[in-house]
Amino acid sequence: MSSSDKKQIKVGILGATGTVGQRFIQILSTHPYFKIHALGASSRSAGQEYGKVTKWKLNTPIPEEIKTKVVQECKPTAEGFAECGVVFSGLDHDVAGDIEEAFRQSNLIIFSNAKNYRRDPLCPLIVPLVNPSHLSIIEHQKKTLGLEKGFIVTNANCSTTGLVVPLAALEKSFGQLETVMVTTLQAISGSGYPGVPSLDILDNVVPFISGEEEKIEWETNKILGGLNEEKTEFDLHLNEKKKLKSINVSATTTRVPVIDGHTASVSVKFRNINNIKKPTIEEIKKSFKEFKCEAQDLNVPSAPKHAIVLHDLPDRPQPRLDRDLHNGACVSVGRVRPCPVFDVKFICLVDNVRLGAATSSIMNAEIAVEKGLIV
Amino acid sequence: MSSSDKKQIKVGILGATGTVGQRFIQILSTHPYFKIHALGASSRSAGQEYGKVTKWKLNTPIPEEIKTKVVQECKPTAEGFAECGVVFSGLDHDVAGDIEEAFRQSNLIIFSNAKNYRRDPLCPLIVPLVNPSHLSIIEHQKKTLGLEKGFIVTNANCSTTGLVVPLAALEKSFGQLETVMVTTLQAISGSGYPGVPSLDILDNVVPFISGEEEKIEWETNKILGGLNEEKTEFDLHLNEKKKLKSINVSATTTRVPVIDGHTASVSVKFRNINNIKKPTIEEIKKSFKEFKCEAQDLNVPSAPKHAIVLHDLPDRPQPRLDRDLHNGACVSVGRVRPCPVFDVKFICLVDNVRLGAATSSIMNAEIAVEKGLIV
Amino acid sequence: MSSSDKKQIKVGILGATGTVGQRFIQILSTHPYFKIHALGASSRSAGQEYGKVTKWKLNTPIPEEIKTKVVQECKPTAEGFAECGVVFSGLDHDVAGDIEEAFRQSNLIIFSNAKNYRRDPLCPLIVPLVNPSHLSIIEHQKKTLGLEKGFIVTNANCSTTGLVVPLAALEKSFGQLETVMVTTLQAISGSGYPGVPSLDILDNVVPFISGEEEKIEWETNKILGGLNEEKTEFDLHLNEKKKLKSINVSATTTRVPVIDGHTASVSVKFRNINNIKKPTIEEIKKSFKEFKCEAQDLNVPSAPKHAIVLHDLPDRPQPRLDRDLHNGACVSVGRVRPCPVFDVKFICLVDNVRLGAATSSIMNAEIAVEKGLIV
Amino acid sequence: MSSSDKKQIKVGILGATGTVGQRFIQILSTHPYFKIHALGASSRSAGQEYGKVTKWKLNTPIPEEIKTKVVQECKPTAEGFAECGVVFSGLDHDVAGDIEEAFRQSNLIIFSNAKNYRRDPLCPLIVPLVNPSHLSIIEHQKKTLGLEKGFIVTNANCSTTGLVVPLAALEKSFGQLETVMVTTLQAISGSGYPGVPSLDILDNVVPFISGEEEKIEWETNKILGGLNEEKTEFDLHLNEKKKLKSINVSATTTRVPVIDGHTASVSVKFRNINNIKKPTIEEIKKSFKEFKCEAQDLNVPSAPKHAIVLHDLPDRPQPRLDRDLHNGACVSVGRVRPCPVFDVKFICLVDNVRLGAATSSIMNAEIAVEKGLIV
Repeated sequence: MSSSDKKQIKVGILGATGTVGQRFIQILSTHPYFKIHALGASSRSAGQEYGKVTKWKLNTPIPEEIKTKVVQECKPTAEGFAECGVVFSGLDHDVAGDIEEAFRQSNLIIFSNAKNYRRDPLCPLIVPLVNPSHLSIIEHQKKTLGLEKGFIVTNANCSTTGLVVPLAALEKSFGQLETVMVTTLQAISGSGYPGVPSLDILDNVVPFISGEEEKIEWETNKILGGLNEEKTEFDLHLNEKKKLKSINVSATTTRVPVIDGHTASVSVKFRNINNIKKPTIEEIKKSFKEFKCEAQDLNVPSAPKHAIVLHDLPDRPQPRLDRDLHNGACVSVGRVRPCPVFDVKFICLVDNVRLGAATSSIMNAEIAVEKGLIV
Repeated sequence: MSSSDKKQIKVGILGATGTVGQRFIQILSTHPYFKIHALGASSRSAGQEYGKVTKWKLNTPIPEEIKTKVVQECKPTAEGFAECGVVFSGLDHDVAGDIEEAFRQSNLIIFSNAKNYRRDPLCPLIVPLVNPSHLSIIEHQKKTLGLEKGFIVTNANCSTTGLVVPLAALEKSFGQLETVMVTTLQAISGSGYPGVPSLDILDNVVPFISGEEEKIEWETNKILGGLNEEKTEFDLHLNEKKKLKSINVSATTTRVPVIDGHTASVSVKFRNINNIKKPTIEEIKKSFKEFKCEAQDLNVPSAPKHAIVLHDLPDRPQPRLDRDLHNGACVSVGRVRPCPVFDVKFICLVDNVRLGAATSSIMNAEIAVEKGLIV
Repeated sequence: MSSSDKKQIKVGILGATGTVGQRFIQILSTHPYFKIHALGASSRSAGQEYGKVTKWKLNTPIPEEIKTKVVQECKPTAEGFAECGVVFSGLDHDVAGDIEEAFRQSNLIIFSNAKNYRRDPLCPLIVPLVNPSHLSIIEHQKKTLGLEKGFIVTNANCSTTGLVVPLAALEKSFGQLETVMVTTLQAISGSGYPGVPSLDILDNVVPFISGEEEKIEWETNKILGGLNEEKTEFDLHLNEKKKLKSINVSATTTRVPVIDGHTASVSVKFRNINNIKKPTIEEIKKSFKEFKCEAQDLNVPSAPKHAIVLHDLPDRPQPRLDRDLHNGACVSVGRVRPCPVFDVKFICLVDNVRLGAATSSIMNAEIAVEKGLIV
Repeated sequence: MSSSDKKQIKVGILGATGTVGQRFIQILSTHPYFKIHALGASSRSAGQEYGKVTKWKLNTPIPEEIKTKVVQECKPTAEGFAECGVVFSGLDHDVAGDIEEAFRQSNLIIFSNAKNYRRDPLCPLIVPLVNPSHLSIIEHQKKTLGLEKGFIVTNANCSTTGLVVPLAALEKSFGQLETVMVTTLQAISGSGYPGVPSLDILDNVVPFISGEEEKIEWETNKILGGLNEEKTEFDLHLNEKKKLKSINVSATTTRVPVIDGHTASVSVKFRNINNIKKPTIEEIKKSFKEFKCEAQDLNVPSAPKHAIVLHDLPDRPQPRLDRDLHNGACVSVGRVRPCPVFDVKFICLVDNVRLGAATSSIMNAEIAVEKGLIV
């Protein structure tokens, strides 16, 4: 069934006036079957036209039909949400927990970009190019909470997303990783609006992003881990009982004067099982180049043609030049070379506002549609 | 003997119109005993007034007495150089090799910022806050070349300089290091003028600097190594015969939109000798804070009050706010914390155009004066 | 006849590896009827594949079919050019004069972005949203030079282009202007690659662009002027004999740390003919909003839906947010308000690399096709 | 009497934790006779150590003795203020009005950087390099308000300050001006901290600063105007009854990605009195170069050696290279050239956080000390 044959699905957007909410609107306004139906924001904006309460910061205009749409409060009973087949959440974490739970309890389906439920043992944490198989815990989530329809799916932190895609390619080709050392150079858009004051970042680097390193170190293991056979429990790499399997991740996160696009310097060591010969640099490059993921197999509308774009030029990827590849839905990898300390070093780049945020939520929902989880 | 009592020493500057040359002039114009006497540049500029041939790019004006000084060719026979007690070289590496050799053969003393002689087994590669003891190979250099007076001393690559100072502090307190993983975020001034095109770096990161990673990985071991008893050979950490002692360094170098100041994300593992207990984070912080170096003991004019400034705020050091500390002659260290993979992670920052270039050359020369090597 | 029915026209690109040349390729690779057939560059690149000799700096990849195309020398006899119905020139002015003349003498049709022939009394200087009627001098150009087919059409300097579109709207509605005072804030891409060194522009403004102010002051009058009845001579506003009609333009041009998009602060005084009442701000806004140009009437493929986008928000237009409107083919105008000194002040913005360069050339050629000048 | 012989004067700083407050502290910490005695901030900070409540954003460390100083509420009765000979105010305008009035009523002397009293007919609005003579209205201010000692002196808006210094030089040499057209390119620090969000200004220009154009257009006339003979009333250029004398100022203000330093593009027309011959460009340059002001005659500690630095290089002044000249206490002027519309065009540059803010307040106070107004 092609996308154009799909029946239209009404969607809601929570946090619609914020940075991630604006991206949801920009991307969804041309979506083949998701149709924006309800917009939720703070009570300060509710009751007013979207165009009047939003400081729109994207370089395409507000879609005409959205401009005059009346914003609702973020309540499941607010006009429009009840009819939504999917509700996307771009809420700030300080309010996301309660609001998303209220929506779920009202039997609504939430795909959230917020961090609140990422560590929840019932909620899948899905990078669509990596682990859509984790959606199979949803049955257990609904059952446990006694809900007929409502559930929450989260996507990963933006910088984690850019990292786990190449790591997944490596694990798929060469088995489990033992150690990952990563230093990120993150874009200002990752911190929303108003976000980073210009006085802090012009001609500067801020070598600290609160909570970010912990997210990368923890989320990586949940995403790259499996589910048990009963599809009721995550086989966390970090799981204490299965210590051997966890990947030892060490992250340093910094902010740089870049608008969009998180760059990461990564060094990786493979787990040495049975003294199997380590892959060559050429074999590693090949594994990146040929990496195929379920989102591509399912051919969902937001899936990139290539999950990983491998760059050959020695000075790529670069955020300004490469973040727009495949509409920001892929991860760029370059400078694949031996590491004097571990096995291989490379640079990776993700569009933090698209694959790192809104596009992941949307692609996750597309995959859920394809798997019959949204009806 | 205080600085003001020192007798004046005439100095020459090679590559005087370039980025590093301009810094030499800026710093030396207020030096207590080095007096600028001769300026050397390409034959295109020779014979003309300095102010007329130089695109001065510093935020202090050209010193008045330098503005009208006539530029010479970079030949030891050009007017003025013969009287110089010290010749500083800010030459580009494509011409530095031959010119510096010609000056040395004319029994002149060169302190060079160029990379050409850094790996020379007769030339000391000195970061003044780390290994001025390497100056003792100079006797052997002069003897081997049959020179009465002439010699060459080099200082390190700018990013290496920022790294080895905290590494030296750690080795001084806790013994030898085994592994260093470093990712740098380097300023545009590191590449000179015109250097990095603005189209390449505005709203961007360039994850590659040609030859830079190799410099960090190699120079670190020469600088942190020793000299044999006869003061004729460097006890390179990389020395094949003494393999165990070399530090395994893995560097990734990137360029970011910062004017001055190289930031580095560093993770370090101590060599585990006799299962000695590893230092705590507090002990490591203390070692940074209390690090004292020979340049400070000798109280040379350019020595910073603190070789390392330890920052407690979680988001420091930052290039724009911290590069000017102690006139750019110290290294800032912050975010000292445990590394899940190695022993300790931290951020360090060096002013690449001062301690990372001109200030190192000048401080090296001051130390040489103090040790009686310049007469 | 719709664009898709048009017969394909082979086109050549001179200066194909440069900044403007890359834009020509990017835009033309999806053009409905212009097909890239020949690529010309310096003899250094000639004979090699385009992808191998070009430092591609756009954020979309080199079109696949162009990557392996062999680059030719910029000679009319070089392979491929003879078959081209149109040759676009993105050459630097230091070589454009001779090369474009050689192509014209070979009866080829050149649409040039270079400045060399802009002041030529036989060559039209056309901003496609303003004065395509000037194409009617081409007959005279060919006749004068004794050429059957070859001619040269130029487009304006990038900053002039952004200025004359709103000026044309004002003149169309309210008659001739007397005085224009303009200060520009120009993007770095206006100076090509490598262009502006990053050390010159990060955290900085350079209040000078060589030759730029003269171009704005002079070109504005040629573009906004007419042709005589015989279509053989430009009725320059600057024409000495018709002094009264020239617009008094005073320009100051500056460079700011913006990648693409020239902003201008403009103040304008209407010529007071017969003491006619001056238009109100509302009438002026209406004239901008409703401005229609011949390119739109002809419905050529590159014509924007709106020639001028009028912004109501008090802090717009902004280069980063508005340069992409209508694919960079329109001019944004905002902050229309009374001027205490002249009649009206406003801010305008043009995408300097699209409407300010390649898009103008292409749209000019499209108009020429529509007018039967290219056969 | 030299500065060092002056008796120490205790000073207070209101708004001490803000951007301007930090500059007051930075500059005053090395002042020859003003000694920081009391620090005032919001009740949120009051009672705590300065170093603990301040996000210090300058590139020199907090002075040691200030770090541990306890912050007070901004009340004249709060500890320490009663003993202050001068109170500097870096308060935000939303609170400055009431607080400064309360301090004045308590017979304290306020030098304020806030805008609240700039238009007050009793308060002098002083740019120290231009109109310290306006201090003579203070007697009238105190008398009118029935205060023995308390008064308020304001300094100008940062962008006005940079403009009026060269205008004053022109008026001094060539008589009154008729018209001034100015477009500014203002630094982000002008909007305080957090101020401009980085997402708004990286790779961008914001062509609007709320209220700024009105300030320039109005303040210029008060500053360049005189006082009546009785020293009780400002002879405003804008004064309706003396309409002929007001300068017609038209300002456009924009924000650019520059940290410190406001640049302005200025065009000026002289008032044509008795058909006197207009000055030549050389004469105008001379008038800038030789401009001397009262602050220099009085030789107050913060007075720059040159009030105006005239630049000869065609691409100067530039904010990054020239804002630090004379410790940011002068105005740089360059590109002095004929204007096709008015008489002369030039570029000027002021350090908006020093002469444009804190340094003006301090220099005004120094002049008041010299004139015996502070006892």
